[in-house]
Amino acid sequence: MIAVYPGSFDPVTSGHYDIITRAARMFDKVLVVVAANSNKAPLFTAAERLEMLRECCADHLNVEADVLYEGLLMDYARKMGAAVVVKGLRAVSDFEYENAMALLNRRLEPSVETVFFMTSAEHSFLSSSIVKELGRLGGNISGLVPDCVALRVREKFENLNAEHTR
Amino acid sequence: MIAVYPGSFDPVTSGHYDIITRAARMFDKVLVVVAANSNKAPLFTAAERLEMLRECCADHLNVEADVLYEGLLMDYARKMGAAVVVKGLRAVSDFEYENAMALLNRRLEPSVETVFFMTSAEHSFLSSSIVKELGRLGGNISGLVPDCVALRVREKFENLNAEHTR
Amino acid sequence: MIAVYPGSFDPVTSGHYDIITRAARMFDKVLVVVAANSNKAPLFTAAERLEMLRECCADHLNVEADVLYEGLLMDYARKMGAAVVVKGLRAVSDFEYENAMALLNRRLEPSVETVFFMTSAEHSFLSSSIVKELGRLGGNISGLVPDCVALRVREKFENLNAEHTR
Amino acid sequence: MIAVYPGSFDPVTSGHYDIITRAARMFDKVLVVVAANSNKAPLFTAAERLEMLRECCADHLNVEADVLYEGLLMDYARKMGAAVVVKGLRAVSDFEYENAMALLNRRLEPSVETVFFMTSAEHSFLSSSIVKELGRLGGNISGLVPDCVALRVREKFENLNAEHTR
Amino acid sequence: MIAVYPGSFDPVTSGHYDIITRAARMFDKVLVVVAANSNKAPLFTAAERLEMLRECCADHLNVEADVLYEGLLMDYARKMGAAVVVKGLRAVSDFEYENAMALLNRRLEPSVETVFFMTSAEHSFLSSSIVKELGRLGGNISGLVPDCVALRVREKFENLNAEHTR
Amino acid sequence: MIAVYPGSFDPVTSGHYDIITRAARMFDKVLVVVAANSNKAPLFTAAERLEMLRECCADHLNVEADVLYEGLLMDYARKMGAAVVVKGLRAVSDFEYENAMALLNRRLEPSVETVFFMTSAEHSFLSSSIVKELGRLGGNISGLVPDCVALRVREKFENLNAEHTR
Repeated sequence: MIAVYPGSFDPVTSGHYDIITRAARMFDKVLVVVAANSNKAPLFTAAERLEMLRECCADHLNVEADVLYEGLLMDYARKMGAAVVVKGLRAVSDFEYENAMALLNRRLEPSVETVFFMTSAEHSFLSSSIVKELGRLGGNISGLVPDCVALRVREKFENLNAEHTR
Repeated sequence: MIAVYPGSFDPVTSGHYDIITRAARMFDKVLVVVAANSNKAPLFTAAERLEMLRECCADHLNVEADVLYEGLLMDYARKMGAAVVVKGLRAVSDFEYENAMALLNRRLEPSVETVFFMTSAEHSFLSSSIVKELGRLGGNISGLVPDCVALRVREKFENLNAEHTR
Repeated sequence: MIAVYPGSFDPVTSGHYDIITRAARMFDKVLVVVAANSNKAPLFTAAERLEMLRECCADHLNVEADVLYEGLLMDYARKMGAAVVVKGLRAVSDFEYENAMALLNRRLEPSVETVFFMTSAEHSFLSSSIVKELGRLGGNISGLVPDCVALRVREKFENLNAEHTR
Repeated sequence: MIAVYPGSFDPVTSGHYDIITRAARMFDKVLVVVAANSNKAPLFTAAERLEMLRECCADHLNVEADVLYEGLLMDYARKMGAAVVVKGLRAVSDFEYENAMALLNRRLEPSVETVFFMTSAEHSFLSSSIVKELGRLGGNISGLVPDCVALRVREKFENLNAEHTR
Repeated sequence: MIAVYPGSFDPVTSGHYDIITRAARMFDKVLVVVAANSNKAPLFTAAERLEMLRECCADHLNVEADVLYEGLLMDYARKMGAAVVVKGLRAVSDFEYENAMALLNRRLEPSVETVFFMTSAEHSFLSSSIVKELGRLGGNISGLVPDCVALRVREKFENLNAEHTR
Repeated sequence: MIAVYPGSFDPVTSGHYDIITRAARMFDKVLVVVAANSNKAPLFTAAERLEMLRECCADHLNVEADVLYEGLLMDYARKMGAAVVVKGLRAVSDFEYENAMALLNRRLEPSVETVFFMTSAEHSFLSSSIVKELGRLGGNISGLVPDCVALRVREKFENLNAEHTR
């Protein structure tokens, strides 16, 4: 059974990585998909986000990373033969949005089931936004993202700061 | 008794239409008001939103559509002789925002009462944002909006895409 | 238009009374109904609760109090010719329960609409349970319930305490 | 992969049945387990609940029903070789309780993963308590529970009422 | 400044102990108060709960444990010269209840301020009920309660089980 | 003990002012800190916000206002010798965000404790956004902000409107 784990992953956090690891134990194959079809302005390009996902999931043999550049997730899932969408839940606010998305997606494609994993207690406060906020303000993000990602975040903000002061 | 049903209606959804129909059974007259005084960038102009509302409410003899271009809803309600504001509630996140707005509006104008209708179960996942997101990504929105609105949403995104590729 | 306002009213609080007053301005007649068909053990008998409601609503000419001893609220509403059920909403926890009840009631009787009033800010912490808890512990409940009810609550706990110490 | 779906099932509702059907498509085997180790007073005995589950799941070849008379769910899951616990989520209040249970269970047995399915929109208001409340008050429960269960609920309340009036 | 930390503490958990430790760093003296005035049936007597609190707080020189047998917390706080009530917050459901209690207490005694500490992430799933449930079912509670308490919980359930089988 | 009360204060509301007053009674010194390091576009400059805070807190001898132009709040707190961060909680949505921030800040600096005050019932609907929205639409904001702030908000929107019509 193939599962799709969609997200912005801007960047992938230790919370996302934990969900990937747990989903990889449950399904034959997990497709981690960078949703590049959103209209939010990301910090990292879709290509950078894909690269980071590939790097930190290199040891998971049944995990692949991909980018969804346009179109609907449900169309992508069907095309890839995925029967499951995996999502993480941290908080009540996640729950309501994800509940609405799951109901919508079920209406669009009843054969694809959405399942939810609760985020581990130690990651309950963690999000890509918090990582970016910390990175921007010079805070320590080690432990909040996989190690290879921590380097990239620091690099990104050094470049942005260098541009600003130029 | 006259009721005002305010919203962005960008565009009106089947969930909004359900609330309009139910409110029209309860009150002598329902004024559906496009809040054009918000500072969010809409997909449809206030005039387009008004036209869609008029078209899909044509069969409700005690429903009228209008636009609030500037000023406060409470001032508008008073001017129109409305004693009631109608709002729909879908989820906990709606509840908190609408609760705050109702308390504020009551403070601004104690004689106008806000009443809430729960959204029907089959529309609980539905919002104008989800309709626009689906429309943008080429998903099927029929059933999620009144029929005449579905045509307009498709047209709007075809025009936007045509502009982009020009 | 006739509205039914159901509740345990064990006892009626200032928050309930505020909803009654506001509903009485909106509907031609408001039937405040003591739900005696619940299986919770009340502090006051249904007859006592009815009496307190009648006493504190005596000045509202279009408000009547009644008791629902058995059967469903929707059957009662239909029998009384009521088209509306009124409920108050204080908090998120109310919202979820009341949302479920409204969806259920709509399924049982689609012609009866449930509308919600937000509790006034100054009553947002108030419930019959809190009044009983305060009463039991000898706290001051004036302002939290209509004046005539405050007397009854004190009397009730004096009698209960007298029984205990006998 | 074997999944355990625990609950009180007092009685099994159409919402539970929907989750069972969906879980049965995802996992090799689904063990629906009546948690008889709770200290709540049920309407149906564990044996009756088991029988109802067996009857309504008879067509699902990879679904089995069982009773957990004592001990922890995690010990049961391990003993049965189950790697997954399945739970349904309806509302925010479910979410918080189930989140706490999932975190606790993970601590007790890290190798067993809990996954959540969102309840279908049309069952969002539904619970065993609501079915029992309706049954007790003589309301129509058809559609809210599988057909064979509806018969049992009516029978149960007829017997209880006969006892009362004897 | 003296702070009161009220609760059922039936039994005190590692989550409670964490709040006690943090409050003891902030206030001159912390009075941990067993609320024996509630009408819930506890597992441990008020005297046992007091003893457990005293044992596990023995190293905190500015922490004292006490029992509130009757009357209101606000009256107790005033009598003890406390200017602050401390409460822990785990989840949204806590928040709403505690918010209502804080507003009520402020109305009863405006000079006493309620402050909230967020429960540590690793204790977010933890409650006295979960400890008792685990204890009853023979689960491992070490780490969930202070060590001295774990012994008492095991002992209590051994005695209860011995009584049952006698 | 020194407490830091951070916020956007764009502008300071009567709800913020109430928290400042209550915190000033609990701690030796309260540093109200304008977080100018956020990337939201404010209505008032950091300097204007600081000035308004200073003006309305002039009578609180142990309250000082400051601006955090860059860097993390936890670094600022440490530098200023503050052991406490104070935050206000209005609603469930606040709670989840603030809970996440408190857990993050504790991880960044375990020696600084975050404590929460519940917003007074009469300010539960109030926020800087609502003040700005009302100000923009010409609504009456007196009572929602300290008096000196009301003048500034009116002035600001008069200037903005004058610019627009020029």
